[in-house]
Amino acid sequence: MAHPTMVEVRDALIAKPGKPFDLRARDSGDRSLFPGKREARISLKKDAAVINELQDKLYANRDRALLVVLQGMDTAGKSGVIRNVFADTSPLGMQVEAFKAPSKTELAHDYLWRIHDAVPRKGRIGVFDRSHYEDVLVVKVREFAPADVVEQRYEQINSFEKHLTENGVTILKFMLNVGYEEQGIRLQERITEEHKRWKFNPGDLEDRKLWPEFMGAYEAAVQRCSTEHAPWYIVPADSRTRRNAMIARIVRGALEDMDLSWPDPGYKMEDFDFS
Amino acid sequence: MAHPTMVEVRDALIAKPGKPFDLRARDSGDRSLFPGKREARISLKKDAAVINELQDKLYANRDRALLVVLQGMDTAGKSGVIRNVFADTSPLGMQVEAFKAPSKTELAHDYLWRIHDAVPRKGRIGVFDRSHYEDVLVVKVREFAPADVVEQRYEQINSFEKHLTENGVTILKFMLNVGYEEQGIRLQERITEEHKRWKFNPGDLEDRKLWPEFMGAYEAAVQRCSTEHAPWYIVPADSRTRRNAMIARIVRGALEDMDLSWPDPGYKMEDFDFS
Repeated sequence: MAHPTMVEVRDALIAKPGKPFDLRARDSGDRSLFPGKREARISLKKDAAVINELQDKLYANRDRALLVVLQGMDTAGKSGVIRNVFADTSPLGMQVEAFKAPSKTELAHDYLWRIHDAVPRKGRIGVFDRSHYEDVLVVKVREFAPADVVEQRYEQINSFEKHLTENGVTILKFMLNVGYEEQGIRLQERITEEHKRWKFNPGDLEDRKLWPEFMGAYEAAVQRCSTEHAPWYIVPADSRTRRNAMIARIVRGALEDMDLSWPDPGYKMEDFDFS
Repeated sequence: MAHPTMVEVRDALIAKPGKPFDLRARDSGDRSLFPGKREARISLKKDAAVINELQDKLYANRDRALLVVLQGMDTAGKSGVIRNVFADTSPLGMQVEAFKAPSKTELAHDYLWRIHDAVPRKGRIGVFDRSHYEDVLVVKVREFAPADVVEQRYEQINSFEKHLTENGVTILKFMLNVGYEEQGIRLQERITEEHKRWKFNPGDLEDRKLWPEFMGAYEAAVQRCSTEHAPWYIVPADSRTRRNAMIARIVRGALEDMDLSWPDPGYKMEDFDFS
């Protein structure tokens, strides 16, 4: 079976800018793009190799950057995406930032200050494991900021992201859409499997209790901040392999759209003496 | 044939702290640790896999970091080491900094300011592609700073590195020792091979003309700054595969010496409700 094209994946997963967005209409277990797991694995492997090649060219040119924003409830698979989609990419060309609760110093600045600081430099692929969207997600749900402050942030974020894209940073935003039931299974694994236990945080269960509130906050964030310049993609995340394969297709597509080539500094060999 | 043990590789390549160091006694083409290229490739592959596993544990514990310092003349293979030794490691656990000529802001501070800022956070493996050693290498050779200022720096660097190791950062320093002749071949490749052309910088030929001066500066830096807490390893770098295999052995060994295990937060499954 042929793999879905980049355009097919993008069209299936995008939250169309300016259109109403209904998160409940998105099935976290949707397998229609990759019915077979084996197909997904093969597609991912191929795309990871091409992403590596294109990243080398991006690095060589150093005039643009790619920023991949990953959001999702706990266990949705942010680390897994990073490891697998960029399995072949040299660490030299990557810049990963995992945002935690802000420090005192960070809180002394506006919420985009630490985000801007972590934007990948030109030539690199940056990944945000959580991001400024936490400032309209957990902050909204837990009322860490007044509602009117959160309300202002959607447009501030759009404006910030527009600024970045106008300055050479391509932005891809992925919501890893894991189902409530699947999350329960994965949280249990974190307790029962020794190598996952360190990831477990009893606080995750507190977030789980607020599942409908979080889904509402995601829906609002996606609805308000899926823009032409920085669209949101809603990725069915109950299947790890398919999730990775879908994201790899879109990342590869974004790099291909950059139409990268090896820069030629115009030197001629006979101009130089290597003896 | 059995692979050389970590101890054998370390003993063969280390510049013994406190002992006179003669760079000319180190053969850039030495293949005695890995006579066969195939053996080197297999060893590297195995070590890269183990480095990944150990890095996961390092990340889970987040109480220590590993800093790998790479120095070498142009074409010695710093990028190749990063790509191959950490081929299996998730970008989430890596932090790579490629130091260029300092910016105006950086020059407004002492030379270790930008270095300290780039030290890997706990849980991560950091790689310095060039480092603070440039401040006693190119700076010395090209006389960007007075001789007595450079002279002071060796002890400042030792003191800085001691501080880091006492605070949980294990430091490994590798001089990728490429031969003059091999460098000539590789610089030519950068002109003739399309995908390498972007790496070529006519300035590299200027450094090449100062080869003996650079070797003298390397010798002094290694002699003065190979310490018990942060030793220098001189890696024969004329063979790319063997170079990578030797470094992977030492990196793996350093991680094994940390005696890492999965942290157990002590939760019991029956304490939690996943429904």
